[in-house]
Amino acid sequence: MKKIAVYPGTFDPFTEAHLDIVKRGLRIFDDVIIAVAPSQRKKPLFNLKERLTLIKKSIKALSNVKVEAFNGLLVDYMEEKRGVAIIRGLRAISDFEYELQMAHMNRRLHSQIETVFLMPSEQYSYLTSTIVKEVAFFGGSVKGLVPAHVEIALREKFKIVADIME
Amino acid sequence: MKKIAVYPGTFDPFTEAHLDIVKRGLRIFDDVIIAVAPSQRKKPLFNLKERLTLIKKSIKALSNVKVEAFNGLLVDYMEEKRGVAIIRGLRAISDFEYELQMAHMNRRLHSQIETVFLMPSEQYSYLTSTIVKEVAFFGGSVKGLVPAHVEIALREKFKIVADIME
Amino acid sequence: MKKIAVYPGTFDPFTEAHLDIVKRGLRIFDDVIIAVAPSQRKKPLFNLKERLTLIKKSIKALSNVKVEAFNGLLVDYMEEKRGVAIIRGLRAISDFEYELQMAHMNRRLHSQIETVFLMPSEQYSYLTSTIVKEVAFFGGSVKGLVPAHVEIALREKFKIVADIME
Amino acid sequence: MKKIAVYPGTFDPFTEAHLDIVKRGLRIFDDVIIAVAPSQRKKPLFNLKERLTLIKKSIKALSNVKVEAFNGLLVDYMEEKRGVAIIRGLRAISDFEYELQMAHMNRRLHSQIETVFLMPSEQYSYLTSTIVKEVAFFGGSVKGLVPAHVEIALREKFKIVADIME
Amino acid sequence: MKKIAVYPGTFDPFTEAHLDIVKRGLRIFDDVIIAVAPSQRKKPLFNLKERLTLIKKSIKALSNVKVEAFNGLLVDYMEEKRGVAIIRGLRAISDFEYELQMAHMNRRLHSQIETVFLMPSEQYSYLTSTIVKEVAFFGGSVKGLVPAHVEIALREKFKIVADIME
Amino acid sequence: MKKIAVYPGTFDPFTEAHLDIVKRGLRIFDDVIIAVAPSQRKKPLFNLKERLTLIKKSIKALSNVKVEAFNGLLVDYMEEKRGVAIIRGLRAISDFEYELQMAHMNRRLHSQIETVFLMPSEQYSYLTSTIVKEVAFFGGSVKGLVPAHVEIALREKFKIVADIME
Repeated sequence: MKKIAVYPGTFDPFTEAHLDIVKRGLRIFDDVIIAVAPSQRKKPLFNLKERLTLIKKSIKALSNVKVEAFNGLLVDYMEEKRGVAIIRGLRAISDFEYELQMAHMNRRLHSQIETVFLMPSEQYSYLTSTIVKEVAFFGGSVKGLVPAHVEIALREKFKIVADIME
Repeated sequence: MKKIAVYPGTFDPFTEAHLDIVKRGLRIFDDVIIAVAPSQRKKPLFNLKERLTLIKKSIKALSNVKVEAFNGLLVDYMEEKRGVAIIRGLRAISDFEYELQMAHMNRRLHSQIETVFLMPSEQYSYLTSTIVKEVAFFGGSVKGLVPAHVEIALREKFKIVADIME
Repeated sequence: MKKIAVYPGTFDPFTEAHLDIVKRGLRIFDDVIIAVAPSQRKKPLFNLKERLTLIKKSIKALSNVKVEAFNGLLVDYMEEKRGVAIIRGLRAISDFEYELQMAHMNRRLHSQIETVFLMPSEQYSYLTSTIVKEVAFFGGSVKGLVPAHVEIALREKFKIVADIME
Repeated sequence: MKKIAVYPGTFDPFTEAHLDIVKRGLRIFDDVIIAVAPSQRKKPLFNLKERLTLIKKSIKALSNVKVEAFNGLLVDYMEEKRGVAIIRGLRAISDFEYELQMAHMNRRLHSQIETVFLMPSEQYSYLTSTIVKEVAFFGGSVKGLVPAHVEIALREKFKIVADIME
Repeated sequence: MKKIAVYPGTFDPFTEAHLDIVKRGLRIFDDVIIAVAPSQRKKPLFNLKERLTLIKKSIKALSNVKVEAFNGLLVDYMEEKRGVAIIRGLRAISDFEYELQMAHMNRRLHSQIETVFLMPSEQYSYLTSTIVKEVAFFGGSVKGLVPAHVEIALREKFKIVADIME
Repeated sequence: MKKIAVYPGTFDPFTEAHLDIVKRGLRIFDDVIIAVAPSQRKKPLFNLKERLTLIKKSIKALSNVKVEAFNGLLVDYMEEKRGVAIIRGLRAISDFEYELQMAHMNRRLHSQIETVFLMPSEQYSYLTSTIVKEVAFFGGSVKGLVPAHVEIALREKFKIVADIME
């Protein structure tokens, strides 16, 4: 039986750190599904459709990866997809605690679902979507931190924002 | 002289972890007052009156516990109630730091007031009001994490929200 | 060649902990520039002009310190000012992680710029602008935690807020 | 191709938390090898042979698990066993940092080897071999924290120690 | 019924931070028993008898405090003393985790015993017995960090050590 | 007046992370003195003389750096050298806490001495002398983690150890 893992997140936007985790997940699991949450409350910079498009383009060279939007309870989605594990990247301590909370809650909601924590490459240890947006907002280069087309999308997005603000 | 402790918080909503801390507080203090802050800025799901009602129902089997709304500075309230200690539950590291900050500030404002940190039961180590709301929002079961009537109130609340959003 | 350091922040408002860090910075660097970010997204209590004024008054007894507003990317500002280092105060763990993230990002954007972390005096270990505002909002005394004129400004500000709310 | 994971450690002694991690590993991997390091420098209570025996007895009801002693560099052992991942349990922050250090070092030594972090059951969040030994040393009950035969071995071991000390 | 708390530790040596915690404990509990563990494995600088003597002298101005040696399991000692709570000082994160582990273990061994964490005064936030010994070993002043007679005892102890080493 | 900084440590052995911190220190200070503590209690792998030699060779391409052994209280040494600041590398949280403790103690012993924390390059975030020794002990490559001659010294040292153990 195929071992399927789900990698959930907001991915606003998808960074090289996310891509790194996906590739590591593929060494362990047969299939990885990137599950994109709408996360309206977080007021994402890119809407759900934009985020899905950016991710699809980022992973097109990889096999056994799929991108989907998902809504509702992660454990319900897991069951529907017959996923055996939730993948989470592990960076800092603050991450760590929230991740443990979520993982315990998911286990409580569905005892058979494991959360596996993977470690991104050293060079992405301090990389977050939030920092990428902050730098791009002020016109800084995010080259090497996000795939090239995400960099372009960020520049495009902030140009529009700047135009509106003028 | 009776030793009175105050257990302040937003309690949005009151969970089994909160109830656990109240019971532990009662082993040490003669009286425990649950002091509910309006916390308007946090935009609570349940309004102050609802939160007070949910807590009252949760503790009706306990003696020497009282629930009250409080506004203003915690140390002023403490003085008014002749409380000797502020009770705080201690879970994660992130909690820990904020709690230390608040406790130091309160001590500065009123040097005679102690903050005592109590540890919730292992099974509630990762339980927060926020996670309870997230799970309930998506229709997940929060049974065993909140008192039964809080579970019903959450379901009720999110049904209304869903109706409005349709 | 003079060694110039930049101490960036929102300073909403400037506290004794900030002042303490500035003084420590002056032991190591020839000049310290306090660079105030507008931080509109954080919805500061004091506007940029007010914050600049409060800081100027706080440091008027010190030599080799300057206060300026800055906008955009910190590393660009650093280059313009020929700064060799960014000064950051180091308090709690949660600080620590965000600070490391920012420092790594700044280094990536400009490899020659160092971030130096200084430790505030013990008595300010738990002091943050946020806590100062919370206490002042409820009418608590923040004497000794902020310079006297900042205390007055806080009282003034919250009186106005209270008037509006009535 | 079978996915093999290696779960390395000192296991002095094997606890219910270790057993819990092994079972979780089996949901994700086809085979799990428990790799017991001699760890002479740590002066273990149980010698290598005793530890191997205690683990074997603990897992005899499980399929696809093997116990072996290993010496030398973990990554060399991984290669020999054709393991795709190192399993580590994730409990506290202090663990977390050391684990990240080791995982980064292992990745540096062998870039194709992943470390996956699994979360033990809530009830074992605070359980360590060290605490088990401390409690057993003073005659406290460790029932439910270690398999029954490990409990007996601990009692036996400390009786001998007590005899010697008399 | 009197509320008795036990404050266990090695106290090698007793510092102003310990004394501070004892005084805070007395605001909450009717009696505080300082329970000194032999801690042979830690190879203490002062032997058990010396530590007991130093503590007794440190607390002679306080009422309702007692000092005793204790051996064995803390929960057994608690029961014997009819203590309702274990007092622990809470400083840093690393403390915090070990303290939570011990507290959970003690609760498991005896469900009716609470651990209450108290926060030392700001000025003792970074004070540990280990650091005191390091400074005293190199002839640095520990005035204000330990009671005066402990300072003398440290000086005496290290003079002897220095004599032996010559 | 020249600004002199002291970078104290055991350096057992000196790694690329240490070298990285030295170089960063030179951007801020006019002179950096690497002050090597004997640290007998830690039972170092390399004796003091060997460590001094390894460091000297590592920094021979740098100007304004000096290596010295130091014994006794760091603040006394600082005063003797007219140092304005102690340099410390900042990596993990556990480091962080111990570093803060030491820095507060040093400030208490000598109020004019600052500790500045510098951040090593990302690629050395997880690099410690201890991990380097562990890897080298088992014959793993530490190339790129320590200067080439340190690598040779490690190999030499462990060959001798292995010979003795046979």
